[in-house]
Parts: sequence; structure tokens; C-alpha cells
Amino acid sequence: MRAWALKSRPTGTPVADNFQMIEAADAPLGEGEFRIANSWLSVDPYMRGRMNDVKSYAPPFALGEAMTGGAVGEVTESNNADYPVGCKVLHMAGWRDTVVAGGSNPPEGGMPPVKLPDLGVPDQHWLSIIGMPGGTAWFGLLNVGAAKEGETVFVSAAAGAVGSTVVQIAKAKGMTVIGSAGGADKCAWVKEIGADACLDYKSGPVLPQLRAALKELGKSGVDVYFDNVGGEHLDAALACSNERARVAVCGMIDVYNEQQPQSMQYLTMIIGLRIKIEGFLYPDFAAQVPEFNAGMAELIASGKVKSRETVMDGLEKAPDAFIGLFTGANTGKMLVKV
Amino acid sequence: MRAWALKSRPTGTPVADNFQMIEAADAPLGEGEFRIANSWLSVDPYMRGRMNDVKSYAPPFALGEAMTGGAVGEVTESNNADYPVGCKVLHMAGWRDTVVAGGSNPPEGGMPPVKLPDLGVPDQHWLSIIGMPGGTAWFGLLNVGAAKEGETVFVSAAAGAVGSTVVQIAKAKGMTVIGSAGGADKCAWVKEIGADACLDYKSGPVLPQLRAALKELGKSGVDVYFDNVGGEHLDAALACSNERARVAVCGMIDVYNEQQPQSMQYLTMIIGLRIKIEGFLYPDFAAQVPEFNAGMAELIASGKVKSRETVMDGLEKAPDAFIGLFTGANTGKMLVKV
Repeated sequence: MRAWALKSRPTGTPVADNFQMIEAADAPLGEGEFRIANSWLSVDPYMRGRMNDVKSYAPPFALGEAMTGGAVGEVTESNNADYPVGCKVLHMAGWRDTVVAGGSNPPEGGMPPVKLPDLGVPDQHWLSIIGMPGGTAWFGLLNVGAAKEGETVFVSAAAGAVGSTVVQIAKAKGMTVIGSAGGADKCAWVKEIGADACLDYKSGPVLPQLRAALKELGKSGVDVYFDNVGGEHLDAALACSNERARVAVCGMIDVYNEQQPQSMQYLTMIIGLRIKIEGFLYPDFAAQVPEFNAGMAELIASGKVKSRETVMDGLEKAPDAFIGLFTGANTGKMLVKV
Repeated sequence: MRAWALKSRPTGTPVADNFQMIEAADAPLGEGEFRIANSWLSVDPYMRGRMNDVKSYAPPFALGEAMTGGAVGEVTESNNADYPVGCKVLHMAGWRDTVVAGGSNPPEGGMPPVKLPDLGVPDQHWLSIIGMPGGTAWFGLLNVGAAKEGETVFVSAAAGAVGSTVVQIAKAKGMTVIGSAGGADKCAWVKEIGADACLDYKSGPVLPQLRAALKELGKSGVDVYFDNVGGEHLDAALACSNERARVAVCGMIDVYNEQQPQSMQYLTMIIGLRIKIEGFLYPDFAAQVPEFNAGMAELIASGKVKSRETVMDGLEKAPDAFIGLFTGANTGKMLVKV
């Protein structure tokens, strides 16, 4: 069994030297246990927070111990009738090739393996569009943001796993969508998947671009801002908000790697426009996941929503894949094929 | 008739020279009209926003024209049976000694005069604890902040008109209250009206003081932050929030006079703690004002809530009273006695 562990805690953007591969002999299975061979691993921006030695919504990774994260795999050996050999599972023991689950030990990553529901989507979609990133997009846009048909949605990191799903759900539900992404190629792709406009934040300040896009689309302002990045994007969204706008704060990737304070010029808009800013986490909506799965499977089947993935091959590539999240290496969901 | 007008638009903190007194002969009354002699004028921080030439939630004051604002007065001459001579009214034609209301012209300040309800409170309370500032405290704390018995409330500008009412309502409803005010005298008074602790923001940074106060009170963090100032206080409140904390944003007096961006270090806490930040305006709760009036009259009658006012004498003093809001000249509600 091989797994990735933290060798040292990153300061700022993680580098390859922060990670080390650890190896162990395969343990024999105990009662009720089964072995999963991972086929797909997820790397996600939230993992950056767990690399710091501070209490956050998820506990920090321990140095020298296998990290955890979303993964899809197949049962290859089993002492558990509920998880027979050949059964495919979604679980949290990522960053490694194989893992023993079941039995009396608490599940790795805190979540017991879940058998993949039979909704006719490819396995790796359970780590992307119909999994945590897709659900984050769904609940953030529709529950936290309460976005309605006819409204104008602004979403940052729109070429990322969550953002690109927000774009597609919003379009499928009759909203006007302005995305933001880094570089002309990504912006072109964000428009290809349905956005009415896409700002290139690498080409210049966000606020004038957002104002110009709204004007061109004949829109007075933003009704829902889906925030993946914080900082300048959040400030621009506040500056261009409509009355009663909602900001669903999913992430602030701009500041995960920095200790720098964010410079906010438009927070006062919150008062006069009665803006609501609210943070959320995917697990808060656990009870509504089956509803999301069904709704998303329908959008996928109808062709209205597609999963786009950037795949790196081999367990060896997991740290590169993760680091790439912060350097813009992915379009859509970043995955590792074991 | 004498009234205060803007002579020029302030940049930064307003100064006396931004204001000019204008005079006009008393107009004869038309059909349905009545004349009000003002006895009390309100000066409020929100008026600063109306002194800029930018669209905000209230339109800007025009240069050279009588400003508007809350006032209480008595009808001295009347062609309107609904408003007989001697009747007392709350209205928006402040900043002046007399005004003609009723008839076919739109009411000054956009709100028709309201006869003072008979709830047994002194006239000037209708500009303070049972009026707009009191209602702002009530709706912000209980509706927007959804503060509950047993929770911990942090309120900035706690010696101000709104803040001191928040302190008293929160205590009356069984919450733990930490205030913040400028200077030892004000802090002593904030504790006198019931706060469990009061930070002196003039004595040093807010965050370590807030952390120390929470620790001393045996509280894990802030459940509701009632924001009157923005900036450093808001950031400290986010840093010390409990899960699912609510921030009711009433004002950001720290930044009304400045073009400077706010430096925010703890916005990322919004995500993991699922903090909700929401702006609000008193008029949004117009339909619930009678309910607030009745509830507040009860708290006043029970002695649980008291109005504290800083009074400046004479119409001449109105600009000084207003400027004093930004220099800490008031404890409790700042009023002008005409």
C-alpha cells in the first residue's frame, strides 16, 4: 500500500517537497473488513486548509500520515457481505492506492464508504459533477444563494470544478451568468459551457470588467455572487450588487495561501443594498444529497450539464495535481487516475 | 422659517463651514395644510451618506436647500382637521424650526407626519429609544441577527443611540453582552446600562480585547455581532465568531468619512463557521413598527430599558451636534432642542 503524506507544512503555495510517499505492507483483513483499490482520487482546494496546523472546519493533516480526501475505488477482497468483491464505492481514503475499510475502526476521513448509486454516470463523475464539487455548486447556488430564474449570477473560478458546474446549473435554470477565469482559453471555455460573459481576471482589474459585462448584457447588477476566491472578486461583486443580493461563500482560494489581509472597498454596500453574505459547507446539506443526485443526473442525461475533467495519470502525480489547483493547471475538475 | 442647508459637500469628516443657515418668510397655509413648530431635531450618522453627491439608499441632499431628518413638533396653525392645533407629530422635516405639511405637496423627507402614539413616553423618545434608532436596534438584533436568550452578543458603538439600545434589549432578553466604546467614561456607562463587558477601542486593538472579554465571561465566541462601525471591529467579530454566527450590519461609521479600503484578515472565517452577514435598513421593517413600539414601551415601563440623550440647545447647534457624532461627543442619542 502506497500513500501520500505531508512531509512538512506548506507556507504559501504548496511545493512538491512538502509531500512524501509512504509505503506499508498490505494488512490482512479482519472481521467485516474489505479492501478497496482506488481508481480515481480527488484533489480539492479545501485540502489546503487542512495542511495548516490550525483548527478549521476539518482537522489538520498529521505529518507523516496518509492524507485523506475523496476517492472512487473497487472492492478487491472482502469479509463484508454488504461490500462484495467488484462493488464500486465512493469514500474518503484518497491520496493512496489501496485501503482497508469496514470492521470496527472508524472510517478513514470520517465517512464510511458509499456504494455508487446506479444513475448511469461514469465513475469519476462521483468525484466531480455529481459528487462533492457538483453538490457544492448546486446547494450554494440554489439553497444558499436562492438563485431564481431570470436573475443574474456572477461566479468566480468559473473554469474550476465547482464554478463550471455553477455556470451550467444556472444556465439550465434560466439565469444570466457572468463567469470569471484566468486567461483567454479558460474564458472561451466558460462561454462554451454556457456563460453569457466571462471576465479574464489576468487581463486587468475585475471591477471595470464586471461593470462592462453587466452593461453589455443590459443587466442592472448581480443578484447572486458565488464566491470561490474572495478578495478582489468579492469586492467587485459587492460594488455591482443589486438590492437584496446574496453572496454564497464557497471558498476564498485567493487567500488560502496567504496571510495577507484582504483590502475591501465596498463592504459598506452591504447596508444600503441589504446584501446577505453567507458561508456554507457541502456536508451541511448531507440530507439533501439524494435529491441533488437525482436532479443532477437528470441535467446530465438531458445534455444540459457536462462534466469536464483534467486528469493526471498515476498516484505519483497527486501532489502535482493538487499544486496545480493553485496555479490554474485545471479546467474543470482536477482528478488523479490511479 | 430658518433651516440648515449644505453649503458645500464635506470631504472626510464634516466641518462647520459645510453648513449654512437659510431663512424664508412663513408661507400662508393652503388647503389641508398645517404648520409644525419643531421642538426636537434628530441628527443621525446615516445623514453623512446623504451629504455625498452619490446615489445611495437615500438621495443626496441638494446644496442650498433645507436638509431633512427626523423631528418632533407641535401643530401651531392648521387647515387640516386630522392635525389640529396642539397635536404632536413625528416627521422628517428636521434641520429647521418650522415647516408646512399636509396639502397636495409631497411630504418633506418622503414621510407624512405621524401623530405621536399615546404610549406614555416623553416626546423626544420618539427620536431615540422608541423611534428610528431604537427600532434599528430592535429589528437588527432580534430580526436580522435572530439573537436568542443565552447567546453572546457583541455590539460596537455601544454608547451610541442604537448601540446603547442594543445593549439594553439584549440584557432584557437574557443575552450576554459585550460592548465596545471609545474611552473609559463611555465604557463605564455601557456597563452601567447592563453590558457584561465593554472594550475601549481607543485603548488598543479590538481583537485581543474581545478575546480577553470572551475568556473572562467563559464564552466560546460571539453568536451575534451588531455592527455599527465596520473595519477593525467587524474583522475582530469574525475572528471570534461561533459557528452559525450572524452579523447584522447597521452601519459602518468608521468608513463613512473615508475613501480608504478596509483591511480584513478574517473574512475566510465566513466559510468554515457558516457565518451570515446581512445589511438592513429600518424602513424595511415599517410593517412591524407598531409591534416594536408596544414591546419597547413595555421595556421602558418595566425600567429595563432607559433612554439616554445628549442634548444640544438651539437650532444654531444642529451642525455641531451632527459633527459631534463622528468625534464621540454623544453618549446615547444626540438630539437638538429647538
